[in-house]
Amino acid sequence: MSLIKTIGSKAASALDRELMSPEGGGFSIDQLMELAGLAVASAVYKEYPPSKYPKVLCAVGVGNNGGDALVCARHLTLFGYKVRVYYPLRSKKPLFTGLQTQLATFGVPIIETDVQKEFQQADQIVDGIFGFSFVPPVREPFLEVIGLLNEYCKKIPITSVDIPSGWDVDEGPVNSSFEPSSLVSLTAPKPCSKLFKGTHFVGGRFVNKELAEKWDIDIPKYEGVDQVVKVQ
Amino acid sequence: MSLIKTIGSKAASALDRELMSPEGGGFSIDQLMELAGLAVASAVYKEYPPSKYPKVLCAVGVGNNGGDALVCARHLTLFGYKVRVYYPLRSKKPLFTGLQTQLATFGVPIIETDVQKEFQQADQIVDGIFGFSFVPPVREPFLEVIGLLNEYCKKIPITSVDIPSGWDVDEGPVNSSFEPSSLVSLTAPKPCSKLFKGTHFVGGRFVNKELAEKWDIDIPKYEGVDQVVKVQ
Repeated sequence: MSLIKTIGSKAASALDRELMSPEGGGFSIDQLMELAGLAVASAVYKEYPPSKYPKVLCAVGVGNNGGDALVCARHLTLFGYKVRVYYPLRSKKPLFTGLQTQLATFGVPIIETDVQKEFQQADQIVDGIFGFSFVPPVREPFLEVIGLLNEYCKKIPITSVDIPSGWDVDEGPVNSSFEPSSLVSLTAPKPCSKLFKGTHFVGGRFVNKELAEKWDIDIPKYEGVDQVVKVQ
Repeated sequence: MSLIKTIGSKAASALDRELMSPEGGGFSIDQLMELAGLAVASAVYKEYPPSKYPKVLCAVGVGNNGGDALVCARHLTLFGYKVRVYYPLRSKKPLFTGLQTQLATFGVPIIETDVQKEFQQADQIVDGIFGFSFVPPVREPFLEVIGLLNEYCKKIPITSVDIPSGWDVDEGPVNSSFEPSSLVSLTAPKPCSKLFKGTHFVGGRFVNKELAEKWDIDIPKYEGVDQVVKVQ
């Protein structure tokens, strides 16, 4: 269990808004998502290098958690992985169409069907299906991919973005037996991470001391230019 | 002299537009600037670590080169440097006011006057005054800071963002004797870099193969998750 402080789903959402407010952190969502996705990709590189696990499937949901995974997919491609993206409900928001265009120009296939085949062919998975605003139950078209995450977590490495998909953000794996091998908490760990037993990273190097104090979270001690730090 | 291919000022400008076009690269300027500034900060960290050169002055011009330097200033602060920013003509564009807000929340002073005192107190300088769209002559209020770069490049490390400020982008130091110790070329080196004798990095890990072929530039071989590569 990590000793690092956690932040509940409602507070995490408010902190996110404050980071992006012109009177608060002053960040754009493009910047935060870029740094978050880069952090996840860096954690994957540290834990599951391309020499050993070259074929990555990024499973992408509808929200910002999915956006982080799309950014991650691009950086993983640049780091030398063979990446495929499963993205069944594609967003039409400009930021998200941009992320999809970027992937297309780097030759990354984006697939909307036959996710079972995608899992079979992958050496490792990045799980960006649900983030800290997830409220159960899991709905279509994500039932199948959540089932596959449950099945494949016993076979190959899975890195979850911020939350293991399907877990209750505050309560943990109440309706799920999914246990990813790695978790990359973004900005700060959510309460469910206390019940996570695998390798735990924190990323999102954009929190200032004032915000950390206000929201009672820790800023982990990053090394040099690293975008993630292993806390467990 | 680097053997890496270069791109002229007009082509660099067109390539930049193409990277940001929805039909081209699909990137937002926020994303590209974040990655560019992070690349410059990573090069500074490699070459002039905070243990040896803790006090950094970032000298920031009006355009996107200045924006890269503002992003760099934030990352350097996160990497453990004591950063101050000289920014005499502050942009009021939302992206730039956001970058300034970010710096303020991280406690980085932004100064508009008395640049001579700032140079005297710095252990190293990041030069983000002029970029690849610079056309001579140097105008006020930048005459003084260009003079100081000329003087201090003989005394302390200076890292120039994309172009040594005051150099002709294609012809090099025709009206300038300024020689920074390091140069971080972004996207691809500009022709003037052929005449640069110091430590040369390339950064900007967002160019795909198709664009590289179309614009006849090299994608350098980055190591692992590194955001810069030393080419000289």
